[in-house]
Amino acid sequence: MEDGSRDERAMRAAIELSTAVRGTTSPNPPVGAVVLDPAGRLVGQGATQPPGGPHAEVVALRQAGERARGGTVYVTLEPCDHHGRTPPCTRALRDAGVAAVRYAVADPNPAAAGGAATLRAAGVDVRAGLLAGEVAAGPLRAWLHFARTGRPHVTWKYAATLDGRSAAADGTSRWLSGAESRAEVHRLRGMVDAVVAGIGTVLADDPRLTARTPDGALAARQPLRVVVGFGEVPAGARVLDGAAETLRVRSHDPHAVLTTLAERGVVDVLLEGGPRVAGAFAAAGRIDRILAYVAPLLLGAGPAALGEAGVSTVTEAHRWTVEGVTMRGGDVRISAVPAPRPGGE
Amino acid sequence: MEDGSRDERAMRAAIELSTAVRGTTSPNPPVGAVVLDPAGRLVGQGATQPPGGPHAEVVALRQAGERARGGTVYVTLEPCDHHGRTPPCTRALRDAGVAAVRYAVADPNPAAAGGAATLRAAGVDVRAGLLAGEVAAGPLRAWLHFARTGRPHVTWKYAATLDGRSAAADGTSRWLSGAESRAEVHRLRGMVDAVVAGIGTVLADDPRLTARTPDGALAARQPLRVVVGFGEVPAGARVLDGAAETLRVRSHDPHAVLTTLAERGVVDVLLEGGPRVAGAFAAAGRIDRILAYVAPLLLGAGPAALGEAGVSTVTEAHRWTVEGVTMRGGDVRISAVPAPRPGGE
Repeated sequence: MEDGSRDERAMRAAIELSTAVRGTTSPNPPVGAVVLDPAGRLVGQGATQPPGGPHAEVVALRQAGERARGGTVYVTLEPCDHHGRTPPCTRALRDAGVAAVRYAVADPNPAAAGGAATLRAAGVDVRAGLLAGEVAAGPLRAWLHFARTGRPHVTWKYAATLDGRSAAADGTSRWLSGAESRAEVHRLRGMVDAVVAGIGTVLADDPRLTARTPDGALAARQPLRVVVGFGEVPAGARVLDGAAETLRVRSHDPHAVLTTLAERGVVDVLLEGGPRVAGAFAAAGRIDRILAYVAPLLLGAGPAALGEAGVSTVTEAHRWTVEGVTMRGGDVRISAVPAPRPGGE
Repeated sequence: MEDGSRDERAMRAAIELSTAVRGTTSPNPPVGAVVLDPAGRLVGQGATQPPGGPHAEVVALRQAGERARGGTVYVTLEPCDHHGRTPPCTRALRDAGVAAVRYAVADPNPAAAGGAATLRAAGVDVRAGLLAGEVAAGPLRAWLHFARTGRPHVTWKYAATLDGRSAAADGTSRWLSGAESRAEVHRLRGMVDAVVAGIGTVLADDPRLTARTPDGALAARQPLRVVVGFGEVPAGARVLDGAAETLRVRSHDPHAVLTTLAERGVVDVLLEGGPRVAGAFAAAGRIDRILAYVAPLLLGAGPAALGEAGVSTVTEAHRWTVEGVTMRGGDVRISAVPAPRPGGE
């Protein structure tokens, strides 16, 4: 008999471990792993270390040591079967003598895949799919997208009022969204590889684009700050404050921007506007997720969050599917993904 | 011992009865009532009849007849104690010999109130407050607002895309929102006393403003159609199609519009735009509820649902409180009410 709740608890612990290292592993996936001994006791925990460092399974197995023998490893991604910068995890699992492996998501990368088959051939009891949906939509979302498409995953985040304004008529926007929404955006910045904004936004709002704690202090981890478009960033601009690395990409073309970022190993991008850049990404089909913070305000005037996106009539609208709606303080947070197109992508 | 679930079931039945007569009772409240005999069997149901007809309790008691004696009456509003066009319900309840009365909401109207005290003095076991929140936010919301303020209750309904557009750049808006949202709007039209739109919307979109079933047929009950603002309604406009009564109010001033409607006994108003009229109502503080249907589309251009609302900077924004967010098909439906202001209204 399988103990479903034990399995789920263990995989949830692995998911938490993986979430904690988001933003530190690219271009490798943020993976989490836990080891239970034969009696079901937690004897090892691990997450992917920065590139060149050990994978999650190896960290967890090292912690478990001899206690892993005959135990079960829970890991969010299929263990790798190839020699990259580190030896294959399948070997580490066999060497540790584990009896069973439960993983959430299969590795879509042909070079790394085959781990499950190798382990089964070695007599390990392997099962796939445990909490796969949660992992695929959560900590591994961006990396799976990157593995399938070769492009960084782009989340367009914006804040707007109920009447669709991202600022008042005089340009003020502080604060449209509430404290909870703003804190979440800072946590997000701390989890992605790069934050992208247009030069227009930099000139208009002089944003920091850093990840900060609610008291204003810099978070431990900062994303790469990317300013796209033409024109000069003024010498005193906050994005040049040295609190995090800042990259200039002298293009408005989403394809060019994403290619440049992919070459730097960026997998997970948070697009923070403004309207022109967001419109260009929408028009190019290069937004993979929308995260909208709708504040319960009415302004009646002021700019929208999205500019020209190649749509002139309603039948040409870009279509999305809402995957979740939740309250963040007094704001409504809407998460959406591209709607499936008739006839496939 | 009180049977909580029996009480709630009975009051829920009364709420359903009241909801079914919304739009047919103004300026009287849409009230529902059920009668249980001493054994707890449902022996009578009733709802407020059109003005001049009997109140809900009387309809339910007539149906119950002698079986009401010793029984319990559940009613969504405190029974009235005054002679209006009909005799007081308190007398009907005493004459029927009921042992107990449970009502949801107290009558805020001084002329009609006192029913509970009168019944108690007559030895009836009276309790207030059963599902009061549900009733006050539901079928009696508009009437309670009217009773407290003397003004019709205004629900501003609009549809917009994720990026806050109510139409594409070329003016097309068919269909922004999905079939479920549109069906709900038609049900709403069938429940309110009046639907209000500006002359601009009539000229631009030629709406019918009728309540229709999903197959396009006219619903049994139609609201008063109200066209506000200056300028002429073209002779062939659909609002003049005779399917329902149409009223012209030659003013953009929300106060003037609402005074005219109140004089006609209108209690519950659905404001359907366009941006200019909605902006005027928002600026005047005359929107009592927002019902937003956010469609998961991006347009990048096109008009917003709300026009000039007297706000020039973000600190002057009109502030709302989200009272509920639900999916309607693929759309996000947001319901909001005015935020409490520091220092009261």
